[in-house]
Amino acid sequence: MPARSRVLGLASELGPIVGAENVLTESSALEAFRKDMADFEATPAVVARPSTEEQVGRILDVASRRRVPVVARGAGTSLTGAVVLDGAIILDMQRFNRILKIDPVNWYVQVQAGVVLDDLNQALRKEGFFFPPDPASSFLCTVGGAIAESSGGMRCVRYGTMRDWVLALRVVLANGRSVTLGEPLAKNRVGYDLVHLMIGSEGTLGVVTEAHLKILPVPSVPFVRMLVTFDDWPSAGRAIQELRRRQVMANLMEFMDRETVLAVNAAFHTNFEEAEATLLVDLDEPLVDVAEAIFRAHGARRFSRAANEAEAERFYTVRSHAYLAVKELASGVQIEDVTIPIDRLAEYLALVKEVATRHGLRMPTLGHAGDGNVHPTILFDRTDSASRAAATAASQDLCRYAIRVGGTITGEHGVGVQKVALMREQMHAHGAEEALRLMKGIKQLFDPKSILNPGKYVEAA
Amino acid sequence: MPARSRVLGLASELGPIVGAENVLTESSALEAFRKDMADFEATPAVVARPSTEEQVGRILDVASRRRVPVVARGAGTSLTGAVVLDGAIILDMQRFNRILKIDPVNWYVQVQAGVVLDDLNQALRKEGFFFPPDPASSFLCTVGGAIAESSGGMRCVRYGTMRDWVLALRVVLANGRSVTLGEPLAKNRVGYDLVHLMIGSEGTLGVVTEAHLKILPVPSVPFVRMLVTFDDWPSAGRAIQELRRRQVMANLMEFMDRETVLAVNAAFHTNFEEAEATLLVDLDEPLVDVAEAIFRAHGARRFSRAANEAEAERFYTVRSHAYLAVKELASGVQIEDVTIPIDRLAEYLALVKEVATRHGLRMPTLGHAGDGNVHPTILFDRTDSASRAAATAASQDLCRYAIRVGGTITGEHGVGVQKVALMREQMHAHGAEEALRLMKGIKQLFDPKSILNPGKYVEAA
Repeated sequence: MPARSRVLGLASELGPIVGAENVLTESSALEAFRKDMADFEATPAVVARPSTEEQVGRILDVASRRRVPVVARGAGTSLTGAVVLDGAIILDMQRFNRILKIDPVNWYVQVQAGVVLDDLNQALRKEGFFFPPDPASSFLCTVGGAIAESSGGMRCVRYGTMRDWVLALRVVLANGRSVTLGEPLAKNRVGYDLVHLMIGSEGTLGVVTEAHLKILPVPSVPFVRMLVTFDDWPSAGRAIQELRRRQVMANLMEFMDRETVLAVNAAFHTNFEEAEATLLVDLDEPLVDVAEAIFRAHGARRFSRAANEAEAERFYTVRSHAYLAVKELASGVQIEDVTIPIDRLAEYLALVKEVATRHGLRMPTLGHAGDGNVHPTILFDRTDSASRAAATAASQDLCRYAIRVGGTITGEHGVGVQKVALMREQMHAHGAEEALRLMKGIKQLFDPKSILNPGKYVEAA
Repeated sequence: MPARSRVLGLASELGPIVGAENVLTESSALEAFRKDMADFEATPAVVARPSTEEQVGRILDVASRRRVPVVARGAGTSLTGAVVLDGAIILDMQRFNRILKIDPVNWYVQVQAGVVLDDLNQALRKEGFFFPPDPASSFLCTVGGAIAESSGGMRCVRYGTMRDWVLALRVVLANGRSVTLGEPLAKNRVGYDLVHLMIGSEGTLGVVTEAHLKILPVPSVPFVRMLVTFDDWPSAGRAIQELRRRQVMANLMEFMDRETVLAVNAAFHTNFEEAEATLLVDLDEPLVDVAEAIFRAHGARRFSRAANEAEAERFYTVRSHAYLAVKELASGVQIEDVTIPIDRLAEYLALVKEVATRHGLRMPTLGHAGDGNVHPTILFDRTDSASRAAATAASQDLCRYAIRVGGTITGEHGVGVQKVALMREQMHAHGAEEALRLMKGIKQLFDPKSILNPGKYVEAA
């Protein structure tokens, strides 16, 4: 907990920059900035709410001079501790909330970092466009957060993750200066690709204030949305592997286990069939027959096509909110983010069951099966050290399996403070020691005084 | 021209690494490595032909110790001087010619850097897959070269450029050590994105020896391919702008002017209609009617659908080889690579005509109209200094226009030695001064002794 006098000194410098009403120091006001969505906790010194890049630059100058860490924060939906830090200035980016331009010829949107993804998509839809990446937190999370975390989501099985959709960025660097990275063009070959360096940098290399994002026309023929149920997990996994082998490209391929469906039905008053394994699937109409045949050959028990668009929307919303339902089942929850080669999917799903049994843990499991990125949510009792230890051990079992089979410990949630040691382990195992050295050099180059989200991720690994 | 004794000293160190038969020092043997495809020239000290990453590492050690520059070269199809350098060790990467794995479930190909893109696609097609990026030189150019240049091509209007298709790389760094960057997975969030830093780095940050590339199933329904002709250039441009506004996504949208078609007809004994402007277009069948209506409304004169697959293939091949035909029209040729926002296309095409007239130059014009990346090929007389000066002035007119309207001086060919000054100009005009500083820092971090393709691109800007 930072000394009160230090906090007041800071606040007196930040007030003239953003206005006193946009500097929060009272512990009641800071409360909303103490946690992320996975309950990683830390106590900031102060929250500043800038609304221009010039203000962000001046705040970073203050931070540099005083050597106070700065954490940019969108909606705080990180799952890895990336947006909380003891003694930090939290840059609350939510006042960067304007959509600056929807360009119907160049197919991009120019948008400020604090815009919520669902709000963006609502505005785009009016113009006949959409922005594909859709993290489950899209009803809360911001453009800037999704860029910092290189977020994925449900539609990514077809459209890829954030890294595939950013054309250009406006960034405030640690030295307080602003810079444009990339160009809002279909093609650009001027200079090294610093746009992608910024995507997924978890707030450690600069503060994104604005982005040009690629957008796509809403497909003129809607996809066919359906639920497919199985009596066991590996059968669902094998069906998905076979779909890939047969070159059937899905537009959505989501997994929910029985515990997840139970939690969803209880929380949202729905009545989804409580099968061992449920897949939520989107397909182009011409692929439906061959897909159904493959599902059946692998033991699928039931198909329920969405009866209409409202029902299709409900399927999607329920799946995207499932984590919220599952999170309520225990005092502690750790959501895993392992991603494995897709030909390991059935094996991985079997392992998840086995790990849960071995450690005596409940692990409702849901996620992006079509990408090999299914999230077991490890439930534990926060007040019981044995339970906490079991959760940690289970997580490590899953991550070490991923490292062993050529997977990754994180597909879309990132590293933050949660997986620093495992990140190092993976990079060593996969021949990337030199890459870690270079990444640390890049952090040093961009942020020589280490004021941007310090002590996490690359720097800590 | 390096001293003969120095060359022999180098060769005596390289021989034990790659075998004496894979070290070339005779000027007749070096001849094939003195030029790129746009006739940028320089005389290397020696050519080494490694076949393993261990050999590449040992060669870089020698280069480091002796402070000799190293230039990795695939097929030498650069258009900007990126693969030629006086006094350098040329790493001829063509022995890295193996396709290591085509993975039909994970949808990637693992391939060595020296594999020719068309050979790769031939192998993939047998398994029902393809690799989308298709630079016009795909019948010659290598995977490693396409990565180093972040190449584009014709299909990029639908599928994007190289930067959208690389999952992971194996790279030998300037210090001689090998490293894996990225993971061959749908998603990975471990560490900063060094894969994209390497894509488009023009051989200045490391030597790519191997890549995991995303692949796609060959579409089950072939596209409709057609030629559409216009009586003037801006009408073709306006039609394309309107197609975008009406959300018609093309799979190919190529432009050829009359001079290009004349050159093609003469060189390849074809008889394409010699219209002022010809578009080569691929569309999904359901989009053909609306597209034709838009073309007609903008003055399209004729539509010729490819009668069958062989003819469709011929349309494509002729367009992709058009630069070779145009290149023969004069002793000097500079191919421009400006990319502009697509809503500027008609204006840009009018400007190209105007610039050609003003400077008294012939400028056959062809390229990727759907991306705003149409290449005027500026013809001049190499032996006439006034003609050379006019060509340079014309190029600068086009580039400065691009900079002014928010375009870029290079969409897919890169910077090399050709556009260093203009790159600096663009970055200053577009608010990217700080980015240039960071890029130079990255070059310094990756290659502290500046042995990798030195004196070009970022380092020179």
